[in-house]
Amino acid sequence: MFQAKIKADFIRTVIDATAILVDEAKFKLTSDGIYGRTVDPAHVGMIDFKLDKEAFDEYECDEDTEIGVDLEKLKSILRIATGEETISFTYAKDEGRMTVNLGNLTRKLALLDVSEMADTKIPSLELPAEIGVPITEIWQAIRAAEAISDHIKLIADPESFQMIAEGDTDVVELKLTKDQLYTLKCGEKVKSMFPLDYLSDMIKIAKGKTDEGTLNLGNNFPLKLSLDMANGTIKIVYLLAPRIEAE
Amino acid sequence: MFQAKIKADFIRTVIDATAILVDEAKFKLTSDGIYGRTVDPAHVGMIDFKLDKEAFDEYECDEDTEIGVDLEKLKSILRIATGEETISFTYAKDEGRMTVNLGNLTRKLALLDVSEMADTKIPSLELPAEIGVPITEIWQAIRAAEAISDHIKLIADPESFQMIAEGDTDVVELKLTKDQLYTLKCGEKVKSMFPLDYLSDMIKIAKGKTDEGTLNLGNNFPLKLSLDMANGTIKIVYLLAPRIEAE
Amino acid sequence: MFQAKIKADFIRTVIDATAILVDEAKFKLTSDGIYGRTVDPAHVGMIDFKLDKEAFDEYECDEDTEIGVDLEKLKSILRIATGEETISFTYAKDEGRMTVNLGNLTRKLALLDVSEMADTKIPSLELPAEIGVPITEIWQAIRAAEAISDHIKLIADPESFQMIAEGDTDVVELKLTKDQLYTLKCGEKVKSMFPLDYLSDMIKIAKGKTDEGTLNLGNNFPLKLSLDMANGTIKIVYLLAPRIEAE
Repeated sequence: MFQAKIKADFIRTVIDATAILVDEAKFKLTSDGIYGRTVDPAHVGMIDFKLDKEAFDEYECDEDTEIGVDLEKLKSILRIATGEETISFTYAKDEGRMTVNLGNLTRKLALLDVSEMADTKIPSLELPAEIGVPITEIWQAIRAAEAISDHIKLIADPESFQMIAEGDTDVVELKLTKDQLYTLKCGEKVKSMFPLDYLSDMIKIAKGKTDEGTLNLGNNFPLKLSLDMANGTIKIVYLLAPRIEAE
Repeated sequence: MFQAKIKADFIRTVIDATAILVDEAKFKLTSDGIYGRTVDPAHVGMIDFKLDKEAFDEYECDEDTEIGVDLEKLKSILRIATGEETISFTYAKDEGRMTVNLGNLTRKLALLDVSEMADTKIPSLELPAEIGVPITEIWQAIRAAEAISDHIKLIADPESFQMIAEGDTDVVELKLTKDQLYTLKCGEKVKSMFPLDYLSDMIKIAKGKTDEGTLNLGNNFPLKLSLDMANGTIKIVYLLAPRIEAE
Repeated sequence: MFQAKIKADFIRTVIDATAILVDEAKFKLTSDGIYGRTVDPAHVGMIDFKLDKEAFDEYECDEDTEIGVDLEKLKSILRIATGEETISFTYAKDEGRMTVNLGNLTRKLALLDVSEMADTKIPSLELPAEIGVPITEIWQAIRAAEAISDHIKLIADPESFQMIAEGDTDVVELKLTKDQLYTLKCGEKVKSMFPLDYLSDMIKIAKGKTDEGTLNLGNNFPLKLSLDMANGTIKIVYLLAPRIEAE
C-alpha cells in the first residue's frame, strides 16, 4: 500500500522536470521516497530525481513498487491545484489505477504497464570540473543565446566559467569569475558544447525554485546539472550529451 | 426614453453570461430593470436573467421596450472600461441606435431588428432536488473532468451531491456531503448527465463573482443553475438539457 | 569611442517607438545624445527622436557616428533585462559590431551598413492647431474606434477637440472641451483623417510613460504627435500622413 500527501508544487516540480524529456515515465515508490530515472527518446537528455519522503506531509510505502505514469494526464490534475494546496496519492499494488485526491475531488488515474518500459541506466562519468552557478544569470545567458544560435559552449578554467554562443554575425557571452560563482573546482580548462533547447528546459525547471545549480563538466563530455530544491528534499540530476563542435 | 448608468462590471456580467450561448440577443427594458431570455441555436442551453434597476447608479425607463443587441459589438466597448468605471446608456424608442457613454467617449451602437428575433419561452420544470453548491469546487471538478471526457454526471441523494466524469480509463469524481453544501433538499436519488462545455461556460460566469450557486436536478432531466450576484441585483438562471446516457 | 550606460526601459522606449515603423534603422551617436529619424517603407509614418545624454547613467561620445541597427536583434537582448536593470553599450568606429553588456552578459551585435541606408528628411509643416491631449482617453477612443473602422477623423476648433470614427452603422466619438485638454491653440476649425493602425501604435508607445501628448493638426494635413518622457530626456516626434476622405 502506498499513501502519500504533498504540497502540489513539490510533486509538480519533479513531474515537470521529467516531462521536458518524455511523455511517459516509470517511477519507483520506496519506503524512503520516490525515484525517477528517465532518458529522452533521442538519448540526449537524462533525468535522475529523488523526491524524499521528508518532502511529504504524510508518507507510507509498505513495499517497493514501480509505476508507469502518463505525465500529461498527471499534469492535468496538478494544474487544477494551487501551489499551496496539498494533493494525496493512494495506490495498492494490484490495482491498475492510482487514486489522486485534491480536497473533495478524486481522480482515478490509469497507470501504464511498466513491464513494457525499459530501465534507464545512469552512466558513470568522470567530470573534472565542478561549478556552482547562479541560476538567474545562466537563464539570462540562455535566453540571449537562443536569439542567435541553437547551441552553446560551456567553458571552465581555474579562474572562471564561461558560456559562449555564436551566431552568423553575433556573439553572446557570459563570463563569471571565481568570486561570482558559488564554487569553482577546475584543474585545467575544459570545454563542451550543448544543444540550447535541452539546456534551456533544464534551467527553466530550476528558475524560481533554487538560486544555485551545480554543473559538472569535461572536455567534449556530457554535462551534469544537479539541482537541490525544497530544502534538499527534492534532488534532480540532469545529464546532457554534448554536441560535436565543427572545427 | 431609456437612460441608465451602471458600473461596467455589472453590465459585463449579464452580457458575458448571454454571449456564451448566442451572438445576438433580445433584451427587454422595463421600469424595474433589464430582462433577457435567450436559447442557444442548438437548444441545449438557455439563459433567463434580470438586471435589477437597483444595480444601476441611475435608471429611468418610461416605457417597456425590446432591443436587439449584437453582443460582440457591445463587448468591444465594455472591454475598454475598467471594472469600476461607470458606463451610460441612452435610447429613445424611435432611434435605431443606442448611445453608450464612457467618460467623454461616445459609441453609437446600431441595434438589431427585434421583429426578426423569436421570443424564448422558459419551460416550466419540476425538479425534485435542490443543491446549494460551492462554485470554486464545482469549477475544479469541471476542469479535472474536461481532461478526460466531454460530459459529466450530476447525482444528488438525501446525504450528498456528486459529479462524475468517466474517460476510457480514468475517472474524475467530486463528492460533497450535506455539511459541505450550502443546502441539500433531495427526497430520493436523482441522476442526469450534461455536456461539459456548456456547464463549464456557465460555471465560469459565476467564478469570482459569487461563492454559491443553486442547482436544481431531476432524473434525466434538464438542470437549472441559479446565480445571484451583486447583492442580488443580478439574477441569472441557466437551463441545460441533459445528455442521454448510453447504457 | 562611444560608451554609454542606461536604464533598460529608457533605451527600450526609443527602440520600440522606432520599431513600429521599420525593422532596421540608422541612429546618430553624438556628444549630446542619440538621434534617430526614420520613415516607414510606405511613407505614411515618420519618427524623429532624441535620447538626451541626460537620460544615461554614463555617456561618452568622442565623435559623431552613424550606426545601422537591426531592431529585432536589439530588442531580443533588451527583452532579457528587467526595466530597472542598466545596460551598457560600447562601440569603436572601426568595428562592425556594438558590444552590449547586461551584468556579466555580453552580446556582440552586428551592425548594418549605413551607406545603404537613406537619410530621412523631416518635412517642415505649418500646422495651425496645437492640442495637449490626455493619452489615456485618446487610447480608449482608439480602441473603441478599432472595433468599427480602420480610420479616424481628428477635429479641432477653438473650443474643443474631437475624434470621430464611423463604421457602416456605428459611430465612435470622443469630445474633449478646452478645459479637459492640457492646451488648445486653434484659430479656426481644422479636420484631418488618419489610419487607425499607425495612430494606435504611436499612442501605445506613450501609454503608461507619459500622461500628455501634444498634437499639431491642419486641414487634410499630416499630424505631428510630440511625446516627452523620462523628465524630458526622451523626446519623440511622430508625423503621420492623412488619409483622403471620400466625400
